[in-house]
Amino acid sequence: MRYEELTIEGRNAVLEAFRSGKTIDKLFVLDGCQDGPIKSITREARKHDTIINYVARERLDQLSETKKHQGVVAFAAAYEYAEVEDILRLAEEKGEPPFIFLLDNIEDPHNLGAIIRTANLAGAHGVIIPKRRAVGLTATVAKTSAGAINYTPVAKVTNLSATIQELKDKGLWFVCADMDGTRMYDLDLKGPIGLVIGSEGEGVSRLVKEQCDFVAAIPMKGDIDSLNASVAAGVLAYEIVRQRQ
Amino acid sequence: MRYEELTIEGRNAVLEAFRSGKTIDKLFVLDGCQDGPIKSITREARKHDTIINYVARERLDQLSETKKHQGVVAFAAAYEYAEVEDILRLAEEKGEPPFIFLLDNIEDPHNLGAIIRTANLAGAHGVIIPKRRAVGLTATVAKTSAGAINYTPVAKVTNLSATIQELKDKGLWFVCADMDGTRMYDLDLKGPIGLVIGSEGEGVSRLVKEQCDFVAAIPMKGDIDSLNASVAAGVLAYEIVRQRQ
Repeated sequence: MRYEELTIEGRNAVLEAFRSGKTIDKLFVLDGCQDGPIKSITREARKHDTIINYVARERLDQLSETKKHQGVVAFAAAYEYAEVEDILRLAEEKGEPPFIFLLDNIEDPHNLGAIIRTANLAGAHGVIIPKRRAVGLTATVAKTSAGAINYTPVAKVTNLSATIQELKDKGLWFVCADMDGTRMYDLDLKGPIGLVIGSEGEGVSRLVKEQCDFVAAIPMKGDIDSLNASVAAGVLAYEIVRQRQ
Repeated sequence: MRYEELTIEGRNAVLEAFRSGKTIDKLFVLDGCQDGPIKSITREARKHDTIINYVARERLDQLSETKKHQGVVAFAAAYEYAEVEDILRLAEEKGEPPFIFLLDNIEDPHNLGAIIRTANLAGAHGVIIPKRRAVGLTATVAKTSAGAINYTPVAKVTNLSATIQELKDKGLWFVCADMDGTRMYDLDLKGPIGLVIGSEGEGVSRLVKEQCDFVAAIPMKGDIDSLNASVAAGVLAYEIVRQRQ
């Protein structure tokens, strides 16, 4: 994964990016590097809740475009993230029960873009993604979202499970897709709902799945295992649309 | 589009590929080149109904990996194509009304792969693609189909409109997706059906759309224009699955 246009390199540039309020998705710092400027940067990163990755010089060199990274490379988000509260407020403003997509570690930027596009058209109020082990709002995501990223708020959270719990307390039900679930047509998906989509390789993680109120199965009549993650998200989202109409 | 592993270059290699029965998706010949060996190759190409593109040297050099193309470069299919009859026979063997995907110029190999994957899992009997202006069964398509390409027959036809007419004569109904259509929930999609999916940029072409018995609209509640082609295919295919259950 590369943030083609938004790789920030070098100590001053990265520190300035933090101080100017830019959203930094990921920070890579040379392992063992502990001097003053680096400490200032990691302090800013912690303040802004940015994930810090301590990496070897080879990895930094690989990430660097200018090859003058001075021990630090940051990836800025191509788009601003929203807060979970923004998503709930949008539902309230529209007078609709909340309909939120939660993505459990989607790593492919094309899938993330297509899912944000689907969320927009299915009338969802926002998308929630985790900070770790997932792709952020890169330029590729923006492009494959076909502009939806400008309309549909995307929030990034530290702990997806904790966010699900908070949203449950606010009355949302959660549904995830898995083959061993109940046929989606037989579930009642009309209320305030969070639709959880698992990662491309591993599906929904055990912990998140245990928190879901429903496990929905998309009927599978074929020979292979599973749909593409963005197609599965579309099929489930439109079952929710159908039931809500 | 590149057929990563299956570029065949040079006169003997290309002629041999044809004679051994390999399926050649596309043939590029140096414009103006008319000698004996080239004539043998174009004769084989016509016999096998392969599209011949006459191109300038610069284009050939660009397509060539070895830079020793001798005026001819061929792209072989990574997988064997089926015939339309094979698809109908599969439906008959399963004792099901035919359910076929027809792709009107899908150019993105990731979309084609995801659509073949969806066709397999939605229980469709096959996929029909046009020869011109569309991606073929490349290695990328095979990969993104997640193996579905080994189970779901894909046929390639010269003229999609003519194929639709032939299939209509055999009792199939055709539905394509467009915003100005009838809400998909209000259509009867239970019989023998061909689902037509338009290209990423332009949707279903006018000629093909005019041949469709139904135009289905996926409800759009958002701010942007359209779903990703493979997501739209999935949503429509599963509306057919729901109605057929």
